[in-house]
Amino acid sequence: MTLYAAPKGSGAQMHALARDLFPICRSITGDGFRQSLQRLGQIAPIALTEVPTGTRAFDWRVPKEWNIREAWIADASGRRVVDFKDSNLHVVNYSTPIRARMSLAELRPHLHSRPDQPDVIPYRTSYYAENWGFCLSHRALEALSDGEYEVCIDSTLAPGHLTYGECLLPGISTDEILISVHSCHPSLANDNLSGMAVGAFAARALGELPRKHTFRFIFIPGTIGSITWLAQHESEARRVRHGLVLSCLGDRGHSTYKRSRRGNAMVDRAAAHVIKTAGEHAIVDFTPYGYDERQYCSPGFDLPVGCLTRTRNGEYPEYHTSNDNIDFITAGSLEDSLGKVLAIVEVLEHDRTYINLSPKCEPQLGRRGLYRNTGGTNPADFEMGLLWVLNMSDGRHSLLDVAERAGIPFATIRSAADALCEASLLRAVDREPPARNHAESLPLSGFARSPLAPSGGNR
Amino acid sequence: MTLYAAPKGSGAQMHALARDLFPICRSITGDGFRQSLQRLGQIAPIALTEVPTGTRAFDWRVPKEWNIREAWIADASGRRVVDFKDSNLHVVNYSTPIRARMSLAELRPHLHSRPDQPDVIPYRTSYYAENWGFCLSHRALEALSDGEYEVCIDSTLAPGHLTYGECLLPGISTDEILISVHSCHPSLANDNLSGMAVGAFAARALGELPRKHTFRFIFIPGTIGSITWLAQHESEARRVRHGLVLSCLGDRGHSTYKRSRRGNAMVDRAAAHVIKTAGEHAIVDFTPYGYDERQYCSPGFDLPVGCLTRTRNGEYPEYHTSNDNIDFITAGSLEDSLGKVLAIVEVLEHDRTYINLSPKCEPQLGRRGLYRNTGGTNPADFEMGLLWVLNMSDGRHSLLDVAERAGIPFATIRSAADALCEASLLRAVDREPPARNHAESLPLSGFARSPLAPSGGNR
Amino acid sequence: MTLYAAPKGSGAQMHALARDLFPICRSITGDGFRQSLQRLGQIAPIALTEVPTGTRAFDWRVPKEWNIREAWIADASGRRVVDFKDSNLHVVNYSTPIRARMSLAELRPHLHSRPDQPDVIPYRTSYYAENWGFCLSHRALEALSDGEYEVCIDSTLAPGHLTYGECLLPGISTDEILISVHSCHPSLANDNLSGMAVGAFAARALGELPRKHTFRFIFIPGTIGSITWLAQHESEARRVRHGLVLSCLGDRGHSTYKRSRRGNAMVDRAAAHVIKTAGEHAIVDFTPYGYDERQYCSPGFDLPVGCLTRTRNGEYPEYHTSNDNIDFITAGSLEDSLGKVLAIVEVLEHDRTYINLSPKCEPQLGRRGLYRNTGGTNPADFEMGLLWVLNMSDGRHSLLDVAERAGIPFATIRSAADALCEASLLRAVDREPPARNHAESLPLSGFARSPLAPSGGNR
Repeated sequence: MTLYAAPKGSGAQMHALARDLFPICRSITGDGFRQSLQRLGQIAPIALTEVPTGTRAFDWRVPKEWNIREAWIADASGRRVVDFKDSNLHVVNYSTPIRARMSLAELRPHLHSRPDQPDVIPYRTSYYAENWGFCLSHRALEALSDGEYEVCIDSTLAPGHLTYGECLLPGISTDEILISVHSCHPSLANDNLSGMAVGAFAARALGELPRKHTFRFIFIPGTIGSITWLAQHESEARRVRHGLVLSCLGDRGHSTYKRSRRGNAMVDRAAAHVIKTAGEHAIVDFTPYGYDERQYCSPGFDLPVGCLTRTRNGEYPEYHTSNDNIDFITAGSLEDSLGKVLAIVEVLEHDRTYINLSPKCEPQLGRRGLYRNTGGTNPADFEMGLLWVLNMSDGRHSLLDVAERAGIPFATIRSAADALCEASLLRAVDREPPARNHAESLPLSGFARSPLAPSGGNR
Repeated sequence: MTLYAAPKGSGAQMHALARDLFPICRSITGDGFRQSLQRLGQIAPIALTEVPTGTRAFDWRVPKEWNIREAWIADASGRRVVDFKDSNLHVVNYSTPIRARMSLAELRPHLHSRPDQPDVIPYRTSYYAENWGFCLSHRALEALSDGEYEVCIDSTLAPGHLTYGECLLPGISTDEILISVHSCHPSLANDNLSGMAVGAFAARALGELPRKHTFRFIFIPGTIGSITWLAQHESEARRVRHGLVLSCLGDRGHSTYKRSRRGNAMVDRAAAHVIKTAGEHAIVDFTPYGYDERQYCSPGFDLPVGCLTRTRNGEYPEYHTSNDNIDFITAGSLEDSLGKVLAIVEVLEHDRTYINLSPKCEPQLGRRGLYRNTGGTNPADFEMGLLWVLNMSDGRHSLLDVAERAGIPFATIRSAADALCEASLLRAVDREPPARNHAESLPLSGFARSPLAPSGGNR
Repeated sequence: MTLYAAPKGSGAQMHALARDLFPICRSITGDGFRQSLQRLGQIAPIALTEVPTGTRAFDWRVPKEWNIREAWIADASGRRVVDFKDSNLHVVNYSTPIRARMSLAELRPHLHSRPDQPDVIPYRTSYYAENWGFCLSHRALEALSDGEYEVCIDSTLAPGHLTYGECLLPGISTDEILISVHSCHPSLANDNLSGMAVGAFAARALGELPRKHTFRFIFIPGTIGSITWLAQHESEARRVRHGLVLSCLGDRGHSTYKRSRRGNAMVDRAAAHVIKTAGEHAIVDFTPYGYDERQYCSPGFDLPVGCLTRTRNGEYPEYHTSNDNIDFITAGSLEDSLGKVLAIVEVLEHDRTYINLSPKCEPQLGRRGLYRNTGGTNPADFEMGLLWVLNMSDGRHSLLDVAERAGIPFATIRSAADALCEASLLRAVDREPPARNHAESLPLSGFARSPLAPSGGNR
């Protein structure tokens, strides 16, 4: 009934997209990141921005660009005992180049494994301390015999650019909803090909719907990407009314929402409502550890940005290992996650406050054909929705207030409100956002250069 | 010790009253309703009001009056397979008259049973869509053989009146406490002969006590009755300071209080306190579904009216079936419920704010004979009551605040406060309601015609 | 790392102190009380004050002074069947003198035992009703044969003094932290030799630390002592910013904190935080029953004084019996309790509000050597502490707010804040209390006579 639902089959399409992206060696800079964004650009229009190495971003500077062609360790017989070709997790991300022969004892400090999970290749990075290294299973590490090894990392770490992608979907208002997706991890499916896929498909779906808010999807490298974006878009950041970080959206666990620093922002309430009414779920408070919400929620910004995941980062054993592979994520979970993102957006777009025009006692709904014969949705929920909307519509409660109190999905409450408006029993009392002057409409990629009028506010 | 207790033996008397009322065929209008109110009038003075069919009541109109003499289904041999004489639940309440012969196939859509409870006769109504029907056990339904049946419902559905009863007990103040009891169900004991009996006995008990508030008990048909009453008494409704809907007060379950829409009204606190300190209980939030609190709590009135029950409507299998019979309710539960209604009233009537006159450290209670030797009540509770009242009586906490915090029954806290006043350790700081001018005193049945002075406010 | 820790070995020292004090027969007045305070004076400087019998203290008067030399019951053969020499619990505390022969029947009303715990000697007092009596095990009581007994209580109850001890530790501010310890119980180890030992050792530890607040430790008889102290120090009481009653701090149970009447005073938050982050614990609301917090929290004072215990009074079977002996308390529990008192004091002394000087996004901690390599403390906690302090330091959250939200011990949060200040990433925004003029410094024992300047306020 609602337009804010995941399209049928979108789960399989997102899984196929993740499968395509899986082999690419992404990092916080470099061609793997660019190539991934180009693939996402086949789903939704994404504009790429390049920020030169050395550019200041608050307390940070954009690092050198990293690219890699091959990396391996060969034993004395020339056999490659570790090879980047098998898995791009084998090389410590951002490793400096090296080509050398050394004993196992010399090599050993550069080898990383997980003794607690001896069969997996761990994911390691060394972005801000120049170093090199390899990751391998603990079993493979233990099987290495003494002797000389040849080590090759054919990488470059040199001035270049940090890349990020944006998909801007203008709405009636210049108030923005920000969806942020870190897209820098190499072959890890849940963290964060799942987020990239859900983000791209959400952008595609919202591109086809009327929009009150302007939507901005950003696909960025973690931490340095959000810091760089914020440093270059302080005025845009002030227009963000609601935001979500998307990550870990494909595993078999239930949905988790991590609140923004504010804790009771509209997006916090909307996301909590959506995942509560959908079944098993978890809602956790903000902590200054996790993904890019750390930056959006730093005290100098304090944006209302939460984080939607299924199982949280660090809370599943496959996290940051080679077991976070394409089979770890499912089409069903991806589709369910996309549906929840869209359901949250429905609340953010359509929450309004109404007034009951027949406020003394209940109106006689049966006479108007509203009690029974409601077609489609669960009639019990819909009829209860009518009673709740009538009872709470005193001008002080919005539809989200009603939905939260009733424990009935927002979409049902919204359709009950629509039916009551139709029957002249209800009238909206808040202002819709004014239509935006066409002259203010923004080209998809030009938003950063043409200054926008100050936000008109649609709340 | 407190005067607000159920009289000994009142449980048995209420059960006998319910037994008397059980066979009468009540509906939302008609002689069964009138006859039932006349029987209640033997307990407490109840004035009847008749409202003509067609009278507007907000979005509704008073329906036609329904009366019924007999109703049966006879098989081809003339044997009455269903007969209203056996149980007035056998006829769909408000059935239009019919006298016809028809096949089982034609009859079948008019027969209602509960396949999930094959031995009970369900209770069904069709107030607002003219129709006829019979209710019978599913076993009886399945035993009907094909063939022709004769059907008779000797009812009338014609212009007449909707009747309701009121018992008005004037108090010092014109501020009102409203007790509302739906009295329209036929042979169903818990829903709501129990409420009718407890309501009538509460009115009798309060008639014999000094009263600060004016008490108004109304015995009305559900939904249309409260809507009609509110439509005709908008100014009286504005005087309602506290209110209770009484229902389902005789079953063996524990007490349940459903909060008013406001959620934290004085009656909400009082009722929660009383049932909490009495043992097992449940307190639930307002929902716009249930009994007449739906109307009192509609946003155009938003009265502080909650609902006191034992097991809630719909939450016991006997609900709205022939198993909600006279044995389903007990004298003990009725007496316990009456005691709780009176205990709630005690809070509403006697909550006051005091100030400790010896506020620096504890006064030496032993010297005054207040620590030990307290006769009757649980000394531990009474002595703790003294300490709590002294500690919290800083002019900002009422006795109910104290009772809630201490978890000690209000009556004990109140008697502790009395003892401390006696010992000159405590003094009330709020105003008692002014005595009402005698000229303002109202005859029991004349309240609706003689306009009252605006409420003086006793809070 | 923090200076506010229990010194190593202090547990054993406190246990030895309690062992020394155990045999002394204390009461609310008399030489046993004085002697006990003199022993505590070997740990920390304690000044004794003597208040004459008959002195008014609000609603009370200082009672006569009680001293006792011996007390026994001898049977017909002259054998002493009960003897004060064996345990000072054998005599009802404050017994009037007696020397008489009487039958068992005459003696019986003066004998107290615990049938539910037949092997223990109960602790009984009769401070405010002149009487005499003996306490003995129920087994011993039942073994008494009929016949004549000789009874001797060689006590004096006569005009004299009530004694209390104070240890005043001046701080930069005249705002006070009050630590109150009832010291009137005879041979009962947990209640309250444990409190006396922890109080004295806390005074010693704080005497060696720089202090913002002025600390006042008072060792008083229960109830009448705090009432007398408050009556004589109303102006000092107005300077109390935070306070703790110490009791029952040596048993093997977990820590319990009973909130002040205010419920959310700074000390309530500090104590709750400290015991929460330390492990198993209980936090209970204020009730006007317990120890001297009853007086500090009477509505005429309403001081922010809570009560720290392990297992609460009345909640362990050994309570007020001869089983509350020296083996019932442990060095480990005493040391743990001392550590918690000092940790609470650390919060009260060092809670401040800071502002993040790099509030837009996270600063790059790694570059400053703050992310890793943190020496000593748990690095995870310390690094999380850095992130929490940065995130919440917007001028509206103090370090205690941060510690509470993060669930990380205050000491860790405080050292994270120190490190961030060092790195110029953080700056305090509240005023430190001004240094106190030396002329205002108070001699340890002279505080009650030289009037103090009004408090400068350090919060």
